[in-house]
Amino acid sequence: MGDQYEVSEAGAGALAIPSLRWEEPPEGPVLVLLDQTRLPAEEVELVCTDVPALVQAIRTLAVRGAPLLGIAGAYGVALAAARGFDVDEATEALPQARPTAVNLGYGVRRAAGAYRAALAGGTDAPAAALAEARAVHAEDIEASRGMAQHGLALLGELLPGGGHRILTHCNTGALVSGGEGTALAVALAAHRAGELRRLWVDETRPLLQGARLTAYEAARAGMAYTVLSDGAAGSLFAGGEVDAVLIGADRIAADGSVANKVGSYPLAVLARYHHVPFVVVAPTSTVDLATEEGADIEVEQRPGQEVTEFSLPSAQGPGTAASGAIPVAPLGAQAYNPAFDVTPPELVTAIVTEAGVVSPVTREALAGVCSTSRWRKSRSGNGMMAK
Amino acid sequence: MGDQYEVSEAGAGALAIPSLRWEEPPEGPVLVLLDQTRLPAEEVELVCTDVPALVQAIRTLAVRGAPLLGIAGAYGVALAAARGFDVDEATEALPQARPTAVNLGYGVRRAAGAYRAALAGGTDAPAAALAEARAVHAEDIEASRGMAQHGLALLGELLPGGGHRILTHCNTGALVSGGEGTALAVALAAHRAGELRRLWVDETRPLLQGARLTAYEAARAGMAYTVLSDGAAGSLFAGGEVDAVLIGADRIAADGSVANKVGSYPLAVLARYHHVPFVVVAPTSTVDLATEEGADIEVEQRPGQEVTEFSLPSAQGPGTAASGAIPVAPLGAQAYNPAFDVTPPELVTAIVTEAGVVSPVTREALAGVCSTSRWRKSRSGNGMMAK
Repeated sequence: MGDQYEVSEAGAGALAIPSLRWEEPPEGPVLVLLDQTRLPAEEVELVCTDVPALVQAIRTLAVRGAPLLGIAGAYGVALAAARGFDVDEATEALPQARPTAVNLGYGVRRAAGAYRAALAGGTDAPAAALAEARAVHAEDIEASRGMAQHGLALLGELLPGGGHRILTHCNTGALVSGGEGTALAVALAAHRAGELRRLWVDETRPLLQGARLTAYEAARAGMAYTVLSDGAAGSLFAGGEVDAVLIGADRIAADGSVANKVGSYPLAVLARYHHVPFVVVAPTSTVDLATEEGADIEVEQRPGQEVTEFSLPSAQGPGTAASGAIPVAPLGAQAYNPAFDVTPPELVTAIVTEAGVVSPVTREALAGVCSTSRWRKSRSGNGMMAK
Repeated sequence: MGDQYEVSEAGAGALAIPSLRWEEPPEGPVLVLLDQTRLPAEEVELVCTDVPALVQAIRTLAVRGAPLLGIAGAYGVALAAARGFDVDEATEALPQARPTAVNLGYGVRRAAGAYRAALAGGTDAPAAALAEARAVHAEDIEASRGMAQHGLALLGELLPGGGHRILTHCNTGALVSGGEGTALAVALAAHRAGELRRLWVDETRPLLQGARLTAYEAARAGMAYTVLSDGAAGSLFAGGEVDAVLIGADRIAADGSVANKVGSYPLAVLARYHHVPFVVVAPTSTVDLATEEGADIEVEQRPGQEVTEFSLPSAQGPGTAASGAIPVAPLGAQAYNPAFDVTPPELVTAIVTEAGVVSPVTREALAGVCSTSRWRKSRSGNGMMAK
């Protein structure tokens, strides 16, 4: 990684988490990323001066999270354009860094489309690519704000009086977003409004995104938070110590079924059993109206080693055998390791989007909120759905 | 540990797991323990030639599990007596190795009582202590057999046709018992009867007893088993891939409330939601008729580091800061880490004991099966309850 250098402890004092930013020092423009594999132990920034460096950062999960990858992809194209590298090559290479990340390809196409249109029109193409990347970034920030606002209002309705004790799973904050994220953005809004009594953070096995990343974000924001083993959530429900569950989503089917990090569905069942609201927070871009129902969502099975061996993400490359991994099960043990699970709409109290709240969760209401979303319009307007 | 030496790979070929045995080589009697902290990577035996060595093995969790600690304690007294060490001192020191382990003190008192009675009666006191230790051991083996038999019959009733897919949590096999254990003994009986299609093994955070120990036992026994993150159990239930849940118990209250390893209660709620039998397997010695109901069971809160840091048990001593631990949460993160949770009787399909099956679980039926138990009679007969 010759074109990628480290800046230690950068931004440690700032409140906002600098998960990604565009900078233009005298030596030329750069994309600065917070290296998420080093969290929570260290805040280290990676400064990418070319596309291969960014591809490497995406591959090693230094930058991750659906919306954030879209923004990174768009800036990657802008970076290639600004530095005079081959933009077509960048447009091909970036999505291949994580082929299954839908948003990554989306961001790349947005910036590349703007670049080509400007080139054809004889205007400043690098400036157009950067402007489009900034637009992708700004839309995501705005979506986060919208979700936080709608989510906070919903909490006020569901739980009058404040003092919320909210349980969350996985990582859904600024580290996955250009803004403050999805579910965690709502919790953060409640915290700022003085209405958050406690954030219960599921550690989220096997990759521990809750313990590593959500706890990091909560600590930075000064929230009262407590980490727990995923299996200990049941004791909190039984003790009446959870007022609401807030989670994000990887994909939402047209019927309102929610695919999210494995371990979400058991929380939905516990929430139902204990009459606790179970709220999903996700941008309308997560709703996939082409997927009819939960059963149609294909669940990715991940390598068993994530369960049978312990290693921090920084110690491993994606799809490769972990180096420095500590075995925690017998050699050759088989593991069942689905990446996510699917919660049916009847267990979901509400879906909070940037365009409004869907509750109760019905096919019609979900389609309705999606049709009003600016994101969908802007996406269709750019003709990106067809590419 | 000058009086404790290692024998590598001992018993690796044998089917029965040599969690503990008494041997009398020419150099004098010894208590041989399988070092559970080295599992599943290595099978290493610790040979204890005196009580301090055994105390050390108990403290470091080389030997663990309620019934097994009772047996180890009894043999510890026999070892002191056989080697001419101070038996009173041993009787005091052994229970202090893990003060909260009820069975440890019970086993020590049984052997010490026999020793003193023989001493007073002028008969061979060391022989009496050893005979009593062997009796404690034999009773536990017999209890395991009884539970396995009753449990297998119950599975046949609940799930006619065999081909069971059983989900279990924590470790409840030969490693915690002089025999084959509790819940895992039932699964093993089903396996031997050709009726086990799959054993789903919850990894059991935070200490991973499922991944480390249950998987080890399942592999040795040749069972078809699969390890999973605790949060992934929900996906198995949703997919209709669990026919029954079998777990052990740390304590059962008079009303049938079951305290067991944290993460058991969420399984009970999932099992209820999916109409899957939830079966608890435990000897009547686990039933505490003096504890009226679940709310009266005090739940031990364990150190937060078990959640916020990763370390294998072999790397740490009990109650001390883990050495070589890898932080997985921000420095100073607070953790909620209850050792167990409590499942109310209405979520328990059956309690399988060595003296019979309680189903439905009622206060009266539970008291009934306890009154017929040989263990309770022998315990009362020795007047051990009062000491």
